[in-house]
Amino acid sequence: MVSRIDMNSDLGESFGPWKMGDDPAMLSIVNSANVACGGHASDPETMYETLKLAVECGVVVGAHPGYNDREGFGRRIIPMSTGEIERLIVTQIGALMGVAALAGTTVRYVKPHGALGNLVAADRSVADAVVDAVTAISPEMAVLAISGTALELAAKDNGLPTYSEIFADRAYQPDGQLVPRKQPGAVLHDASEASERLISFLETGEMPCLEGGTVKLEAHSICVHGDSPGAVEMADHIRQCLVDRKIDVRSFLDD
Amino acid sequence: MVSRIDMNSDLGESFGPWKMGDDPAMLSIVNSANVACGGHASDPETMYETLKLAVECGVVVGAHPGYNDREGFGRRIIPMSTGEIERLIVTQIGALMGVAALAGTTVRYVKPHGALGNLVAADRSVADAVVDAVTAISPEMAVLAISGTALELAAKDNGLPTYSEIFADRAYQPDGQLVPRKQPGAVLHDASEASERLISFLETGEMPCLEGGTVKLEAHSICVHGDSPGAVEMADHIRQCLVDRKIDVRSFLDD
Amino acid sequence: MVSRIDMNSDLGESFGPWKMGDDPAMLSIVNSANVACGGHASDPETMYETLKLAVECGVVVGAHPGYNDREGFGRRIIPMSTGEIERLIVTQIGALMGVAALAGTTVRYVKPHGALGNLVAADRSVADAVVDAVTAISPEMAVLAISGTALELAAKDNGLPTYSEIFADRAYQPDGQLVPRKQPGAVLHDASEASERLISFLETGEMPCLEGGTVKLEAHSICVHGDSPGAVEMADHIRQCLVDRKIDVRSFLDD
Amino acid sequence: MVSRIDMNSDLGESFGPWKMGDDPAMLSIVNSANVACGGHASDPETMYETLKLAVECGVVVGAHPGYNDREGFGRRIIPMSTGEIERLIVTQIGALMGVAALAGTTVRYVKPHGALGNLVAADRSVADAVVDAVTAISPEMAVLAISGTALELAAKDNGLPTYSEIFADRAYQPDGQLVPRKQPGAVLHDASEASERLISFLETGEMPCLEGGTVKLEAHSICVHGDSPGAVEMADHIRQCLVDRKIDVRSFLDD
Repeated sequence: MVSRIDMNSDLGESFGPWKMGDDPAMLSIVNSANVACGGHASDPETMYETLKLAVECGVVVGAHPGYNDREGFGRRIIPMSTGEIERLIVTQIGALMGVAALAGTTVRYVKPHGALGNLVAADRSVADAVVDAVTAISPEMAVLAISGTALELAAKDNGLPTYSEIFADRAYQPDGQLVPRKQPGAVLHDASEASERLISFLETGEMPCLEGGTVKLEAHSICVHGDSPGAVEMADHIRQCLVDRKIDVRSFLDD
Repeated sequence: MVSRIDMNSDLGESFGPWKMGDDPAMLSIVNSANVACGGHASDPETMYETLKLAVECGVVVGAHPGYNDREGFGRRIIPMSTGEIERLIVTQIGALMGVAALAGTTVRYVKPHGALGNLVAADRSVADAVVDAVTAISPEMAVLAISGTALELAAKDNGLPTYSEIFADRAYQPDGQLVPRKQPGAVLHDASEASERLISFLETGEMPCLEGGTVKLEAHSICVHGDSPGAVEMADHIRQCLVDRKIDVRSFLDD
Repeated sequence: MVSRIDMNSDLGESFGPWKMGDDPAMLSIVNSANVACGGHASDPETMYETLKLAVECGVVVGAHPGYNDREGFGRRIIPMSTGEIERLIVTQIGALMGVAALAGTTVRYVKPHGALGNLVAADRSVADAVVDAVTAISPEMAVLAISGTALELAAKDNGLPTYSEIFADRAYQPDGQLVPRKQPGAVLHDASEASERLISFLETGEMPCLEGGTVKLEAHSICVHGDSPGAVEMADHIRQCLVDRKIDVRSFLDD
Repeated sequence: MVSRIDMNSDLGESFGPWKMGDDPAMLSIVNSANVACGGHASDPETMYETLKLAVECGVVVGAHPGYNDREGFGRRIIPMSTGEIERLIVTQIGALMGVAALAGTTVRYVKPHGALGNLVAADRSVADAVVDAVTAISPEMAVLAISGTALELAAKDNGLPTYSEIFADRAYQPDGQLVPRKQPGAVLHDASEASERLISFLETGEMPCLEGGTVKLEAHSICVHGDSPGAVEMADHIRQCLVDRKIDVRSFLDD
């Protein structure tokens, strides 16, 4: 049985005058913030406000790099070579590190966003590019990856501190893959249902699947969404359930 | 008499398919490269190519941050608070540091670009914002400033390693200010004339002024342009003249 | 006494994944939509969705051009010559006209946004540039301006159809200028208060001022905000009040 | 034998401070200018300067829309639905039409750029989207397409004025397709060779293929590049050869 878990969320995804999600609320719930770096979202002001709030809330900061495509929110694959992706990633992590220095915190891990996140989950050569980028910046920077993906393997093979995440509100297939968003039942909207499923996983190490049965998964962190309707309520409910079960909810990077 | 001087140039100012200047030629001449950071110019590929070349040429790398305004090439003042400028600057220096980690080099100094460069020369509060940004990133990062400007003072007052530059191809006023570009004679186009004037300054510490007379200046580096017609020839000629006079041409950051 | 008035609102100001305001609600209330053109906000998808909705709601479409500055939402003055502003404006109006052709409607008037709107209110040379841009596109395109501004004069002098607007939720000074946003009382938040003041103006032609007294104004349209908290409620309340008083609420461009 | 032909070139592809190609020289040679619309290249100033020059040179203006991707110069496929492409295209054609109104000319045809150009050549559904966009703007606007492509068919099927182009400096395959750029011999660098091949085609209607033999093609226009080394010389040489052969070189839209 899992006695300890982290909660992470994609945050800092506002841009200029446009707000996304309720970052102050989410930062009072999660332990790890995946912060957009100016590629798919964010700008210097948004990064700074997000990191200041993270510091106030004692939340660990990770970089959440994505394609340089605000209009598509990083959800479209922009054709790039692995080398180009490597260069893109270091500029984004570096930019967030610059802001972190100003905000009095540190960027401690990396989790790729959106279409890039899907690509590094499936394609080892792109995963290696991201791992090379992270290693160049610091071999002590951790990688937060979905259990069983190419990114997780690449990060482990290269000796980076590697952690796995599961999704609170996404249904799983028996092979451990997420049920594609377009399929009915792919997204869980009910906080109680999501919490119960998570508790069941944490107690058994086996995640209940949409079509029945379970799948064995590894998890150091639970990803909760910050920008969907009811996001804050679900995250809050999940945290409460974990605390009620005496599960130690804290950053995967805490000693 | 000055026995040693650095040569610096604004480089890495291409963007996507558009090239600016002859960076390989300039990097074989100068000792310090002020590299654009994706604000007024550049992108991850351009930064990487520029830094790789700098490494090959043994050129010291500095960050050349500017307003986030490619269309105006950072030459327009974008209304921003000093706090906003501080946040802008750290993202740009950080981005270049990320690329430097990948390219196997280090960002060792900062020199603001264009309209921002003019502003920090004249306005102490903006100069302080830039100095705060640099200090947050690293108190060992140097600042390259025009002699006698607000930026130079702010950097010195805050204990940052501070170096002064003079311009090879710009005429001076008796108060040490540059003659505004729109005035006749403001820009020197003749390489011999520029070299002779520089040699005269290096021998006496007094820069000949456009209207006659001289002005006492301090200088650790000579700024040569990389993107004007005849830029490479002028830089090359100046370097040759310095070498001929047994002046030690190397980075102001070399021991 | 005014027996007829239009209601206009700044709409279509979303961008990519980021939403701003409740356009469907506002389009069911107003008669004229000032639609962002991809400069300070919007993108092709947002323009199209906004215009399709405007068609469904029978709302007249105007272009709402602004500085090409999404990060600053067009609220910062970007230094540009009047000629550059003219070229900027025609690309934005043209882009929206392209979308209008696809959505089955027509761009019938122009109202500049934000910092550009403030500039054309005060500076005749910039106002002339905007009027030249509109005239080049079509001498039948109308201009919606604040009563008594340089833009209104320039548009009239150049023979463009010219209409004046007043603000539902902004306090006035005795000279007809708006009370600056930073002053207490500058913005009216109470829908009843705003409606009563408007009715008073429509009945007398004299707008009550914040400091007491009234100012004579001309108005073909009432500008209601679409993106502030309570915006929809206030717009709805105002429209209801107008209808209750038997004031004919329709587009200033209707025959 | 062909007694008349047009010459077209992709122009107006500068951006902000970055110049591309020698537009003044090219505009003194070609009859039709495919002008970038702010997507893959250009900005309001560049569009305006290009169109003013085109007017002075008596050159017919066409829109050259592309993906909104300056960093990739429109050469990367950005994943978009056909509807999104349709909306993108109308904003770009519209923007150029706005500038044309100011510059005293008219946008008379459309030729898609880069990756979008390749897609509309091969994919009928995207070709239909572009044709729908053009038709919405004006059923009298012409389409310039590569002979035998999906775009040519879609434009003809929808009753748009449709014209075909051949490439001066690209080698052909026996099926009429271009030899892919990566293959040796794909690009002709010798002006005489290119001119002779063109004359041969114009005299026989059969284009010599790289691997020997010929292919029957239809052509109203010859595309000459404006931004490769030697581009101006090649275009000039070709025009001179055509004139020497008494071929009437003028716009395909001239009566």
